[in-house]
Amino acid sequence: MKKQYLMAPGPVAVAPHVLAKMAEPLIHHRSPQFSALLTQVREDLKYLYQTKNEVLILASSGTGGMEATVANLLSPGDKAIVIRGGKFGERWAELCEAYGVKPINIDVPWGEAVEPKGVEEALKDHPDAKAVLVQAHETSTGVKHPIEELGRIVREKDETVLAVDAISALGVYDIKTDDWNLDIVVTGSQKSLSLPPGLALVSVSEKAWQMAQRTKSSRYYFNFLKEKKAIERQTTAFTPAVSLITGLSVVLKDIRETGLDALFKHHKNLSEATKAGIRALGLELFAKAPSEAITVIKAPDGINGQDVVKILREDYGITIAGGQAQAKGKIFRISHMGHLCQWDMIIALAAVERALKELGHPIELGKGVAAAQEYFANVHTA
Amino acid sequence: MKKQYLMAPGPVAVAPHVLAKMAEPLIHHRSPQFSALLTQVREDLKYLYQTKNEVLILASSGTGGMEATVANLLSPGDKAIVIRGGKFGERWAELCEAYGVKPINIDVPWGEAVEPKGVEEALKDHPDAKAVLVQAHETSTGVKHPIEELGRIVREKDETVLAVDAISALGVYDIKTDDWNLDIVVTGSQKSLSLPPGLALVSVSEKAWQMAQRTKSSRYYFNFLKEKKAIERQTTAFTPAVSLITGLSVVLKDIRETGLDALFKHHKNLSEATKAGIRALGLELFAKAPSEAITVIKAPDGINGQDVVKILREDYGITIAGGQAQAKGKIFRISHMGHLCQWDMIIALAAVERALKELGHPIELGKGVAAAQEYFANVHTA
Repeated sequence: MKKQYLMAPGPVAVAPHVLAKMAEPLIHHRSPQFSALLTQVREDLKYLYQTKNEVLILASSGTGGMEATVANLLSPGDKAIVIRGGKFGERWAELCEAYGVKPINIDVPWGEAVEPKGVEEALKDHPDAKAVLVQAHETSTGVKHPIEELGRIVREKDETVLAVDAISALGVYDIKTDDWNLDIVVTGSQKSLSLPPGLALVSVSEKAWQMAQRTKSSRYYFNFLKEKKAIERQTTAFTPAVSLITGLSVVLKDIRETGLDALFKHHKNLSEATKAGIRALGLELFAKAPSEAITVIKAPDGINGQDVVKILREDYGITIAGGQAQAKGKIFRISHMGHLCQWDMIIALAAVERALKELGHPIELGKGVAAAQEYFANVHTA
Repeated sequence: MKKQYLMAPGPVAVAPHVLAKMAEPLIHHRSPQFSALLTQVREDLKYLYQTKNEVLILASSGTGGMEATVANLLSPGDKAIVIRGGKFGERWAELCEAYGVKPINIDVPWGEAVEPKGVEEALKDHPDAKAVLVQAHETSTGVKHPIEELGRIVREKDETVLAVDAISALGVYDIKTDDWNLDIVVTGSQKSLSLPPGLALVSVSEKAWQMAQRTKSSRYYFNFLKEKKAIERQTTAFTPAVSLITGLSVVLKDIRETGLDALFKHHKNLSEATKAGIRALGLELFAKAPSEAITVIKAPDGINGQDVVKILREDYGITIAGGQAQAKGKIFRISHMGHLCQWDMIIALAAVERALKELGHPIELGKGVAAAQEYFANVHTA
């Protein structure tokens, strides 16, 4: 019966009116009603993506969108430059290996952003690299990579595409797909779109379409060309996740009404206030180039980050996330994505204060909350 | 505002209490609560599948489950025997081709079931075939293939597996995964499980696990071995479709309470009554070995099946399905899957009577309905 709060970076809290919409009786996926809904959703996605490119809608987790990118753009024996600065950078490399593509890994320490210069040099050393694969925001570390700069570098290369995993970035902060020359931008439903997991979305540039026509990798379910043909018939290549797309239609309508600027400002405010609170508590942020999607906090010396997560979940009904792989125990992560507002961040900070105190860390209760209050008060009177 | 009825073979009508459950706030996929739910769902799936095998849960349409089967069991250069008697048999062959696997196609005329003898002979001609790929029920034609007999044939072969697409069969009628030696059984959420689309379920036998360890096909998102490891950690390899799995937990609990026999009887009754009604109207069934999942009706001479579908949808608010590919215009299909009951079949027959009359076909209104009424009355007094 305990009240539950979901503040992990996916799945995230879904708004009640969206859940209610998805609970309506289903409509058939090959009906004119669904085609009309799908067409509107695709238009609204272009607004969210700031693109004229088509945005494909796949029934899968976000990883399915990443796999679709590798399988549709790269052939066995091809090379791809992979920015590997966290668990999801590693996923790009693993996907390459699964498809017989040779990853040229640029290893970036967890918590740091890639240097554009390093990518430029890798492209000089490997002029035959067919793609640069990167995260806009590396969810495992909370770091933003400089994709705008990477877009400027890759646009000069006629035979190389820039593919961006923006799963925890698109809709959180400004990503200009077309202006920044992002050939592929992948996102998922369960991050800033505030929907349950189960949808991957992929925008595909003209350069990427050209490349997709020449690819020799095995693929069937994740097939860009089949999806493109399906779009012409106002449908999808395979049975779509109807209820999630219905939910998506509501979220995208809300986003249109809110406007992208206000949406980005919302995330920025939650993020800045939380980070101010964390700093006021004498805690350190893990990411050197922190994002507005999550706040990643270094566990203080002698404290296991997993214990913080556990106390919040078991004692307080609040789900945040711990660290993954090499960061396990060393960090904990609070999401600013999902159906959240300023008061949720106050709760998160209050809970972190209490948990750390309980774990024996010297904490002045209320100090983190006070800093966030101050930030929010200033924003609202500004 | 028109009342809508969904009687197509997927997506199907979802029960209100299941929709309501899925509309509850989300839980995190890496939490003890979700792990417990997942573990219960996996146990309940074994009951539904009549198996001791693990059943994998993938976030994709049913086709994703078929692709997972091909990608995890077969390597480029392998041979597979494909029963091709409809659109989904063709899909097995296309999947093989996408993965460099050579399909040995047994072409069966649409509307007919495969002869087990033909499969036996193909296995003699191609003793190196690694798999037999078949539909339990070919949704495009309404035909049941004799998978129990195929199980007897394939069990004799140590290096060959039987993979069954049971997307529109499992939960509709009796399929004994273990007793019948079915190595792979694929289903999807949007058929007899009466959920929205977005989940594929795949049971994997010991023989199939062995084979999966040797496969060389490119795969990442659809990876049996990764999913197996994830099961040991009571989780999934990638972010699962949380809300659909929550819905699945409710449906499987209902199925346990109802019992498989009653579930199969339910579909049989809807099917038999509908087929009795169709025959009473002087119409012909398309399938020579008809299933309990759907009733497939030949459009009478001079009538386009698509027109029947259109009138039902546009004028009556009822969604049934037309024919696909070579059967387009020649048939129309009424589903018995989903949250349906006897009165829905009365509605479907009444609507078909009216539509055919409107299209100029000689119909005695009420005659189909009367036959179904008779059938249902007998069942209920029996």
